[in-house]
Amino acid sequence: MTQKILVLPGDGIGPEITAQASRILAACQARGLDVEVEEGLLGGAAYDAHGEPLPAETLEKAKAARAILLGAVGGPKWDKIEDLSKRPEKGLLGVRKQLGLFGNLRPAITYPQLASASSLKPELVAGLDIMIVRELTGGIYFGQPRGIEERDGERVGFNTYVYSESEIERIGRVAFEMAQKRGKKLCSVDKANVLEVTILWREVMERLAPEYPDVELSHLYVDNAAMQLVRAPKQFDVVVTGNMFGDILSDAAAMLTGSIGMLPSASLNESGQGMYEPCHGSAPDIAGQGIANPLATILSVAMMLRYSLDEPALAQRIEDAVGKVLDDGLRTADIASEGMRTVSTAEMGDAVLAAF
Amino acid sequence: MTQKILVLPGDGIGPEITAQASRILAACQARGLDVEVEEGLLGGAAYDAHGEPLPAETLEKAKAARAILLGAVGGPKWDKIEDLSKRPEKGLLGVRKQLGLFGNLRPAITYPQLASASSLKPELVAGLDIMIVRELTGGIYFGQPRGIEERDGERVGFNTYVYSESEIERIGRVAFEMAQKRGKKLCSVDKANVLEVTILWREVMERLAPEYPDVELSHLYVDNAAMQLVRAPKQFDVVVTGNMFGDILSDAAAMLTGSIGMLPSASLNESGQGMYEPCHGSAPDIAGQGIANPLATILSVAMMLRYSLDEPALAQRIEDAVGKVLDDGLRTADIASEGMRTVSTAEMGDAVLAAF
Ligand SMILES: CC(C)[C@H](C(=O)O)[C@@H](O)C(=O)O
Ligand SMILES: CC(C)[C@H](C(=O)O)[C@@H](O)C(=O)O
Repeated sequence: MTQKILVLPGDGIGPEITAQASRILAACQARGLDVEVEEGLLGGAAYDAHGEPLPAETLEKAKAARAILLGAVGGPKWDKIEDLSKRPEKGLLGVRKQLGLFGNLRPAITYPQLASASSLKPELVAGLDIMIVRELTGGIYFGQPRGIEERDGERVGFNTYVYSESEIERIGRVAFEMAQKRGKKLCSVDKANVLEVTILWREVMERLAPEYPDVELSHLYVDNAAMQLVRAPKQFDVVVTGNMFGDILSDAAAMLTGSIGMLPSASLNESGQGMYEPCHGSAPDIAGQGIANPLATILSVAMMLRYSLDEPALAQRIEDAVGKVLDDGLRTADIASEGMRTVSTAEMGDAVLAAF
Repeated sequence: MTQKILVLPGDGIGPEITAQASRILAACQARGLDVEVEEGLLGGAAYDAHGEPLPAETLEKAKAARAILLGAVGGPKWDKIEDLSKRPEKGLLGVRKQLGLFGNLRPAITYPQLASASSLKPELVAGLDIMIVRELTGGIYFGQPRGIEERDGERVGFNTYVYSESEIERIGRVAFEMAQKRGKKLCSVDKANVLEVTILWREVMERLAPEYPDVELSHLYVDNAAMQLVRAPKQFDVVVTGNMFGDILSDAAAMLTGSIGMLPSASLNESGQGMYEPCHGSAPDIAGQGIANPLATILSVAMMLRYSLDEPALAQRIEDAVGKVLDDGLRTADIASEGMRTVSTAEMGDAVLAAF
């Protein structure tokens, strides 16, 4: 049965980078991948067209798709929208929530060709390979009650950080299973010395541990985790944490690889339906210049093939093609270095296609 | 009038490092500093003695003191205490709250002698000098309601992230004034694209800005701030943020200087009463071995002289003494490097005293 893929270019550099990734997707179709690809509007682009960051039409298409490829959403143009529910980011959060994409996989990998691009000393990041498993549909980004209201003569802003046992267990299992397939080490990050919600988090992780006897479970407080990531990132294999801590730590981890323009991510629900997107943002400052790095988005297609479409061989071909292009010395501006050839977004796409 | 200083050694390496800092304090008294020094119990040490991490006696002494010198609290020994209100950390949070120490100043400085100890490339951290201003008595660490309760047949954990306009304004003013005395750049960190409480945060910062026309105010989302700290920390001068984000970012920033064993902090209330403590924790793994680095605690005494006791000249003497000892090549184990002399906690204290 032909499966549906929805491409959501989004904002900023989104359209440029998804254009290149769509070419790879087409090349996969030419090699026999049986999918039907359509496009939709999300984020600021959708707000500009329809006054809504997640139009009903997009949501319908998203639900019908086996997998979604997203560029990125947001930008200063929409930062002044008073009604938070209309901001581009809410479109993204809406897709995550409506499709139940609770399992966010964020690899932080240092590409051997790019180790020198890291701000960390090369020996600390060479060979780095962390998988951050972030809970994506709960926690403080979705908790109720929330808002800004008048209390005792002044305004007060409030949000609720909340997790139920079943939400924690569900993401915990994803992380334990991931650890089983990798280095068999799982570090759960919380602030259990202060926050009750994360005491429950830690308790549930502990309760699951005996079911995965081959996995070594450890715990870190989030402040310490941020330090350890900076100090010695290679101590980590799989990291599991809630939505907000995962947001912060996965971005820090991605940046310290020096390969942030290269890092894809997957957001999955229980049936393997998924949204795939680069770890980096919409980079409005360089949008429209044709210089953005399309590799993270291209590698997001590889993740899609692996996790939602069960096509590991095609995924591997893409990853190999990207590796070859880096070996050949091609670099977009963000990863440019002496002795390498700086190329445009489209040239990078051409090169990956040629190597595919 | 003789002012009171309360020393709270706390847990882990706390007693060892405050012992050295107390010697410096005594040397200041010998040079005419008119203070009366007493000791008290806080954290795990207080729990073991009285079943309470913040005994009434300690709180009374703390209130009566102009300044408090704290070692550190917490450790695995107390991580299993079921009742969160009895954990060592709650003693620390209690002092902060009871004394209204809302303004937490956390410098992240790279000591020129230690630039090579950073995990970042030396050119990225040489000369680094950031001041993180963290709100310390509000936000999610104190918000109500909080707890773990049964809902729909399962347990749910919840905490509340809450700030009022006046709380935000108060810490905002501390940060703007700090920026005026430094590089005149202030970066406020929030997650205003998702969390209402931080929309209010950003709004209040914007409202204050015209009163400090010489300060350039910018905003970053917390995930981006974590990335920027790793990528190019020298772009920051003063950073202001809430309790939780400040906890995470200040620890990351401290670690990336490579000088974390060297960094003091101050927590102040509106009348200049303050608590001073090293940025690092209680390091239970090396407690009792006499190898901990006492310099962050010694430098906390310097901060105390500057911010609570109005003795900038004495503060400068301590800072100069520490600089001289580093120049002389003395290092505790945490900052040891080739060609330098590794010394014990007490030897480091001796050396600073001799140079004072
Ligand atoms: C755009 C924003 C809502 C989003 C998030 O915070 O989840 C982004 O930062 C991410 O990490 O995917
Ligand atoms: C010990 C703990 C409660 C404390 C905090 O989170 O505030 C510590 O991490 C700090 O940063 O001072």
